[in-house]
Amino acid sequence: MSVTAAQGFAASGIACGIRRQGLDLALVRSRVPATGSGLFTANRMQAAPVTISREHLGLAEPQAVVVNAGVANAATGQRGELDARATAAEAARHLDLATEEVLVLSTGVIGAPLPLARVLPGLARAAAELGEDGGDAAARAILTTDTRTKTALARGPGFTVGGMAKGSGMIHPNLATMLAVVTTDYALAPGAALEHLRPAVEESFNSISVDGECSTNDAVVLLANGAAGAPRDDDAFARVLREVCANLAGQIVADGEGATVLAEISVTGAASAGEAKAIARRIATSPLVKTALFGHDANWGRVLAAAGSAPWNGGYAHLDPARVTLRYNGLTVLAAGRPQGGEPEVSGASCAIELELGLGEGSASYLTSDLSYEYVRINADYRS
Amino acid sequence: MSVTAAQGFAASGIACGIRRQGLDLALVRSRVPATGSGLFTANRMQAAPVTISREHLGLAEPQAVVVNAGVANAATGQRGELDARATAAEAARHLDLATEEVLVLSTGVIGAPLPLARVLPGLARAAAELGEDGGDAAARAILTTDTRTKTALARGPGFTVGGMAKGSGMIHPNLATMLAVVTTDYALAPGAALEHLRPAVEESFNSISVDGECSTNDAVVLLANGAAGAPRDDDAFARVLREVCANLAGQIVADGEGATVLAEISVTGAASAGEAKAIARRIATSPLVKTALFGHDANWGRVLAAAGSAPWNGGYAHLDPARVTLRYNGLTVLAAGRPQGGEPEVSGASCAIELELGLGEGSASYLTSDLSYEYVRINADYRS
Repeated sequence: MSVTAAQGFAASGIACGIRRQGLDLALVRSRVPATGSGLFTANRMQAAPVTISREHLGLAEPQAVVVNAGVANAATGQRGELDARATAAEAARHLDLATEEVLVLSTGVIGAPLPLARVLPGLARAAAELGEDGGDAAARAILTTDTRTKTALARGPGFTVGGMAKGSGMIHPNLATMLAVVTTDYALAPGAALEHLRPAVEESFNSISVDGECSTNDAVVLLANGAAGAPRDDDAFARVLREVCANLAGQIVADGEGATVLAEISVTGAASAGEAKAIARRIATSPLVKTALFGHDANWGRVLAAAGSAPWNGGYAHLDPARVTLRYNGLTVLAAGRPQGGEPEVSGASCAIELELGLGEGSASYLTSDLSYEYVRINADYRS
Repeated sequence: MSVTAAQGFAASGIACGIRRQGLDLALVRSRVPATGSGLFTANRMQAAPVTISREHLGLAEPQAVVVNAGVANAATGQRGELDARATAAEAARHLDLATEEVLVLSTGVIGAPLPLARVLPGLARAAAELGEDGGDAAARAILTTDTRTKTALARGPGFTVGGMAKGSGMIHPNLATMLAVVTTDYALAPGAALEHLRPAVEESFNSISVDGECSTNDAVVLLANGAAGAPRDDDAFARVLREVCANLAGQIVADGEGATVLAEISVTGAASAGEAKAIARRIATSPLVKTALFGHDANWGRVLAAAGSAPWNGGYAHLDPARVTLRYNGLTVLAAGRPQGGEPEVSGASCAIELELGLGEGSASYLTSDLSYEYVRINADYRS
């Protein structure tokens, strides 16, 4: 499991005192030259480590990743960038790499400076503790309000893809960034990492919602080192990578803050794929749909109202009320715009919402959780 | 107060049995020929009464408005349109108007048919009870989960503008539409009603959020009958109309489901007015910002993260982290991208969030409420 499942990777997770307790600094590196890429938050208020990691990816192939929990190093101005750069440089020094071969990721409080006096000595220790068995410690060291570690593993013909992730909505006292580091011993051509990562992330991490928030620090990183020596089979690799990403994304939703119900939203027949996704996302992030899920109430009018107000191109995505068919946990409640009567069964911990728009070929699906008292408590009450 | 404050208007509110108890059918009419207009939900899943009222506004000047509470007549297919049309026709018959001179508005359950067998006899009674003192009964008859009636009144030189509204987030068991009917005895030229209504609504009803939802039935209607005989002063009328709309909109937020804190979000210095509004709306609808308000926590990192992810033109609105200044209840917590330390006072029932982006001249403000346990209870628990 985790980032050391694939051959040729080492990792560690240590406590360096950024958080009051628990592990808070993870290090992952490839033992042999790797290629890789990353996808980062689209939030305009991006954190310093995101800026620096993007810059490093433009300069070199990534060989190692440093992740700290407890401080997001976001809204920290010029100083934040210097601190992120210093972190990469210190890790590089211990690992005998160039600074730009190291990516840095952070999650935690916004607006507080990174405590370099703790991070820099921590990096020396993290480097010393790197090991092939360090994947689980690394997966623990990146958590914040998460209630469990999130790791995944899948194998293709002669190669392995493994990964770790964190994210559960919001954290004390700021954002719960979604972070994932995926490693593989499959050999990717330089430049190929991004083209594999993009669709895998689109279907997984970009198709889940706990509270519809987009963090300043979200990042997914892929490192591929070819250590398995497997024959080239890019289709198989793409499949296995998607499996690992989907697995990690599912774990994030299941660990969503206060989540008691998991819902899969499926939209078909939309005018375009983009509109299908916009509609699925709108339903998945609607407070009314999410409180109905929590209340175990098949309040399907809320699904329709959300679907009809999905932002798209400055207006709303196409939808013709007379063509909409809605199935709720397998029961057709609306067929081509006409209510069918009947009451869907909604007592379980999962829910399937299927919306067919009858307009075109666009389809998308989204995984979401409910909006519970516990979500409000976690995000409002931590000072009391 | 309400829709009968202006001269030449009559109204009534009666119980016809659409809801299990309480008033549920309101009628408003002008005694003398009026001009008017309406603005309706942009939701693609628009309700039948919205479709019919839009159609009627294209054919004639509106002279009367029927509003029912309890059933939204949304997602009701062809039958819904026939029912909305029958409602307008029956009201017109009693009022000696043409069908297309009557607008119909509904709020309540989605997916259930309008009970015409109750509505049609109800209209006869509502027409018989029309009176210059009926404004308050009408204001009561349009409520759903609202905990209080919402009426407003303002006077200009020689004329009066009055109105009623409903809306408080979500209702049992479906959407809480936002509805408002505004009447005036100022004389508007035919066609001028819409040009006055649009900016007034943009600044008021379109600048509030309880839960970010957009109903299938939202509508604001303006009737102007010139009965006051006041001299023409369109600037004064515009000012008074805005005052009444802002007053009603403020009452809706204050009556937001579970609201315990009111926040005014002000965005200045945006690249454009549209982007300012997109950013203000994103902050006002962020679950993280709203739970922080409920928790009386000045979690200003959440404000920044929301601001950085405001949807705009298929991406996010412009924001440069190095130029952002944020004041929270009067205390500058971030100045040109640099955290200033200090802890804002957040114990009160209101909150002022001022974001200056330093990019241009765009500005906007938004009124919002917090996200509380009570919001979740109202929207999830009503079956238990």
